[in-house]
Amino acid sequence: MRFTSEQHLDSDVRERRFTLGDIPGILWTPGSASGPVPLILVGHPGGLHTMYPRLVARARHSAAEGFAAATIELPGSGDRPPSAAAAEARADLRRALKAGGPVDDRIVERLVLPLVEQAVPEWRATLDALLSLPDIGGPVGYAGGVIAIGLRLAVVEPRISAALLFAGSYVPRTMFEEARRVTIPLQVLLQWDDEGNDRQLALDLFDAFGSKEKTLHANMGGHTGVPQFEGDAGNRFFARHLK
Amino acid sequence: MRFTSEQHLDSDVRERRFTLGDIPGILWTPGSASGPVPLILVGHPGGLHTMYPRLVARARHSAAEGFAAATIELPGSGDRPPSAAAAEARADLRRALKAGGPVDDRIVERLVLPLVEQAVPEWRATLDALLSLPDIGGPVGYAGGVIAIGLRLAVVEPRISAALLFAGSYVPRTMFEEARRVTIPLQVLLQWDDEGNDRQLALDLFDAFGSKEKTLHANMGGHTGVPQFEGDAGNRFFARHLK
Repeated sequence: MRFTSEQHLDSDVRERRFTLGDIPGILWTPGSASGPVPLILVGHPGGLHTMYPRLVARARHSAAEGFAAATIELPGSGDRPPSAAAAEARADLRRALKAGGPVDDRIVERLVLPLVEQAVPEWRATLDALLSLPDIGGPVGYAGGVIAIGLRLAVVEPRISAALLFAGSYVPRTMFEEARRVTIPLQVLLQWDDEGNDRQLALDLFDAFGSKEKTLHANMGGHTGVPQFEGDAGNRFFARHLK
Repeated sequence: MRFTSEQHLDSDVRERRFTLGDIPGILWTPGSASGPVPLILVGHPGGLHTMYPRLVARARHSAAEGFAAATIELPGSGDRPPSAAAAEARADLRRALKAGGPVDDRIVERLVLPLVEQAVPEWRATLDALLSLPDIGGPVGYAGGVIAIGLRLAVVEPRISAALLFAGSYVPRTMFEEARRVTIPLQVLLQWDDEGNDRQLALDLFDAFGSKEKTLHANMGGHTGVPQFEGDAGNRFFARHLK
């Protein structure tokens, strides 16, 4: 992990850009911290530049609660080499959505599984690097999308103690067996009227999660319209589980 | 409205029992209030004696936020004259649940509609009386069950500005048209694994509500297992809308 730049957004948040191999990432730490702080890994649909305003908003929220936050670029997104197979699967998904019918699970698998297979080891390597920093302690949470990545991380990464998952993207039904093996506390965010998502799939996935403590928060406002008060609700979820 | 007893639960909450005609009720006001405060009407499944611990817990929560809270006994419950027709419908519902099949909507109508028809005017008369007290101002919220009563109140009572509805009881599908006419902000609580409730019916009802701001909170823990943190979440919902 190599830090490439540093700035103080204000007295409360320190932002450091880094690379891990060829993966760019960003680390935000609370300015007020006097010792190692808990860490939230912030997932997103890809494209650090585009997502930056939303990511930094969440990081500010986390910092206010005394948590560090970190994110990395997704495989195939932003400045990373694009994947022709992913682009093709995405086009097939768009076509299927336009046709209005149910989306064939094989399309979802082609889109999601290779992404999960590549992204999860990258997140874990990032976690190794972050936890070796003196100002990052534990416990660790995961927040955001891509929900299939959060799901896999919740199963394979024992250092993640709680996850706030954004159910805003498709998950292959073949991953439901994995969902049953998740046991950490979950808060799942669903946009009820998300035009590019499958509500029933999201509800079925929520049902499948094995966690004893799981909460679903469904709101109106479309895919990008998650209400502001959910930032606050997410903070309280992590405050319950990471402190 | 006639006050029949008064006690201070502690320095923070004043509890007054009252009767309105032959309907018993309880009013809780925050001890710290210096002027008229917003009011939350607290619904419940009937039986003030049995429900008292849960009702007073919610009232304490409300008082901490600076809100008054009030409840009345349901028709046919507690010390009020029982209804033979309701008892019969309840027995039919239990039989239908035991048989494991879907519950005929006519059973639900027989159980719920007469209760709604009688309870809603009683709640409105109680609201008239409460709002004439010098220490109760507005705005007004409704919190709890019976969800069909909350639904009807949200449609017909313009003084109610926000409702936190507990989706823990059946609603006849004939009331879904009414649900589409609800426009106030809603937070709907659903116990995902509620053994005596119909999850799909609750999800369909949430979908039917016409409100632009509506949030569903689904949790595990069975019918009576609403997590403690939902008390806190309910307070924040009302703080957003009643202040």
